[in-house]
Amino acid sequence: MSTLLEAAIKGELRDEFVKVAEDENKKPEEIMNLVASGEVVIPKNNSHDLKKIIGIGSGLRVKINANIGTSQDKIDLEEELQKMETAVKYGADAIMDLSTGGDIHEIRKTIISHSPVAIGTVPIYETMIENARKKRSLIKFDPEDLFNNIEKHGKDGVDFITVHCGLTMDAVNHLREQGRLTNIVSRGGCFTAEWMIAHKKENPLYSGFDRLLEIAHKYDMTLSLGDGLRPGCLADATDRAQIHELMVLGQLAQRAREAGVQVMIEGPGHVPLNQVETNIKIQKALCNNAPFYVLGPIVTDIAPGYDHITSAIGGAVAAMAGADFLCYVTPAEHLKLPDVQDVREGVIASRIAAHAADIAKGYPGAREIDDRMANYRRELDWEGMFSVAMDEEKAREFKGKVPSGEESVCSMCGEFCAIKGINRAFKNK
Amino acid sequence: MSTLLEAAIKGELRDEFVKVAEDENKKPEEIMNLVASGEVVIPKNNSHDLKKIIGIGSGLRVKINANIGTSQDKIDLEEELQKMETAVKYGADAIMDLSTGGDIHEIRKTIISHSPVAIGTVPIYETMIENARKKRSLIKFDPEDLFNNIEKHGKDGVDFITVHCGLTMDAVNHLREQGRLTNIVSRGGCFTAEWMIAHKKENPLYSGFDRLLEIAHKYDMTLSLGDGLRPGCLADATDRAQIHELMVLGQLAQRAREAGVQVMIEGPGHVPLNQVETNIKIQKALCNNAPFYVLGPIVTDIAPGYDHITSAIGGAVAAMAGADFLCYVTPAEHLKLPDVQDVREGVIASRIAAHAADIAKGYPGAREIDDRMANYRRELDWEGMFSVAMDEEKAREFKGKVPSGEESVCSMCGEFCAIKGINRAFKNK
Repeated sequence: MSTLLEAAIKGELRDEFVKVAEDENKKPEEIMNLVASGEVVIPKNNSHDLKKIIGIGSGLRVKINANIGTSQDKIDLEEELQKMETAVKYGADAIMDLSTGGDIHEIRKTIISHSPVAIGTVPIYETMIENARKKRSLIKFDPEDLFNNIEKHGKDGVDFITVHCGLTMDAVNHLREQGRLTNIVSRGGCFTAEWMIAHKKENPLYSGFDRLLEIAHKYDMTLSLGDGLRPGCLADATDRAQIHELMVLGQLAQRAREAGVQVMIEGPGHVPLNQVETNIKIQKALCNNAPFYVLGPIVTDIAPGYDHITSAIGGAVAAMAGADFLCYVTPAEHLKLPDVQDVREGVIASRIAAHAADIAKGYPGAREIDDRMANYRRELDWEGMFSVAMDEEKAREFKGKVPSGEESVCSMCGEFCAIKGINRAFKNK
Repeated sequence: MSTLLEAAIKGELRDEFVKVAEDENKKPEEIMNLVASGEVVIPKNNSHDLKKIIGIGSGLRVKINANIGTSQDKIDLEEELQKMETAVKYGADAIMDLSTGGDIHEIRKTIISHSPVAIGTVPIYETMIENARKKRSLIKFDPEDLFNNIEKHGKDGVDFITVHCGLTMDAVNHLREQGRLTNIVSRGGCFTAEWMIAHKKENPLYSGFDRLLEIAHKYDMTLSLGDGLRPGCLADATDRAQIHELMVLGQLAQRAREAGVQVMIEGPGHVPLNQVETNIKIQKALCNNAPFYVLGPIVTDIAPGYDHITSAIGGAVAAMAGADFLCYVTPAEHLKLPDVQDVREGVIASRIAAHAADIAKGYPGAREIDDRMANYRRELDWEGMFSVAMDEEKAREFKGKVPSGEESVCSMCGEFCAIKGINRAFKNK
């Protein structure tokens, strides 16, 4: 069967285009053309019966992803399912299962079967874990294992995979030559680079990119070309190593499209606020407008415990400049595995960023819900306000904490509520 | 005695200029010249023995303000002092006491005597309360009372006051003519407009501006020209009423400077992300580069419970574009009076925005602390990381929640820590 990209190029109007068109309030042909041009991807494995099909890319609503998954220190499948449900409830458009602890194959299959939204994974993690469990030195890692794992993920129904294909020897040399404060902070990127350095061999996902494309094509998995060299601190942002990798990703994205495989590009990372827009523009330019999936960006390094906020700032500015897909960051980032509450906070922060950008870009209808909130506020209609709030429970909880002497107003201003006063003044005249 | 502005114009090098120069790592003369030009203000009542003297304006570090204060529904002086201490501990550069419940004169004096940082107030609140307590109709409010209160605040040692002088009849007419979803959301602005509409009279703080200047001059209080017509929702942003008021504030700022009174301008409010920069640039242009004090801006209306995040996004972008002073917004905004925990969250969110902007603007040395964090991260030096974290306790709390099998790494990645891996790889080569 042809992939969604091949179908779009042929002008074959697939059901997926129709669903995305409904979701975006656009014409199916428009979505089809955007997929054909590579500016939009629809992550969906051809064996995955996906309840909510979404498109990611130019002209569409900004989407958000929530990472969940176990680590060796915390393995609880029930909790991971709760995280998934929480993320979806608060508006995540996709979930990445990044499990590295426990029976990760079983965990992945369970998450895929329970999730209404697209699932992404990072197959190299499984290879890293197998290697570690065999107490095998990294030197012994066989690239064959990685390709086998990618095939397994495809068979399981994974919709998109992060693959660090652009981290080449040249990029590692750039990194060494220029120096960095935090070298490599991507786990997959680090594992790949360690192996490359030890073996003095090229990245197997780069040299074997055609084989990767064959597997991705078979299952119609969308490739998310990972940025193994994303900056891990502000000082390392937008350096030669990062841009070198991005250029390679642009080349590989072109090859992927030519092979009928949907592709998006992953981006930083830790980036000073004044460089965020530039990072988006250079990606779009170098990668023929492939959808851009950003991890943050985080705009200061000194707020661990609050990185949902540092990344909401960077994410909003990135999305306004054209980033299409925001990977959430939770308050736990840099410190621990997120729990269910962290997932909720992370998703909401990311949705705020995405929604603020949709409004800023004039996405049709984006501001309507804000205007409804404004109308409810003018009417002091609390039930109305709660009904359009991003997190209804949290809003109710806050409002209820301090009882107000007057029911119609809140405890912040009480009888001196400006809304109430001006409504009265305008009514009297 | 001459005011700080008059001294600066005369080239009289006051101690305050020296202290601000030390704080900003600049030359005292440079600060003096910036004060003389009106581009920087140093809020300090001439009778207030202020421990921490700061400057606000062009070329200086972005500052943040925390609002505290009682409401009729919640009166607890001890808690307000705790809020003040918490705000200062986490980095607030100034505190506004917006109390509207209890013995507000006593509360104000206590806060002033305990605060190491500058205190601002909104004197019209006191007039509103007195009016309400006398069960007196708004019609009976005597502007004389407002001027008497402003004098009282000056005598108490208040360093800066918000005065809604620019809300004129013309602006109210603009507001009525064009229509708004949320009309007026400023309490002081609303009270003023109600009175103006009822009496068909001009705003007493506009018609009596010279008298206001005399009082401000006497105590060397900095005027913070309030935006009574700031938009209360995205739909109302950057409309004719708002810009009309801003133009009047520009005129009044000029008159204030000519009278030797320091002045800054307050700005919105609720603003779509794509209009934030424009709002800053137009203020700077219309007000001869007077320092700009923004309330938010909040970039979406639908996230009550998370408005510290919506405003951190707007605040960061505003500050990068030139806003000098960010008024924090807490998660409780629009819902209830903030408690101590809300104050902490609000201050940190605001500091993140201010710091991200300082880095983005290349404020000398701003990124140094981020680079220290990056170095500690590369070394997996947790104590080092905690020592430079904006909120050390929160970072420790998160890190400690899930014990990691390995001490040097955190529970997020465990043994698959990229930092650890790449350190090893580079060391082996």
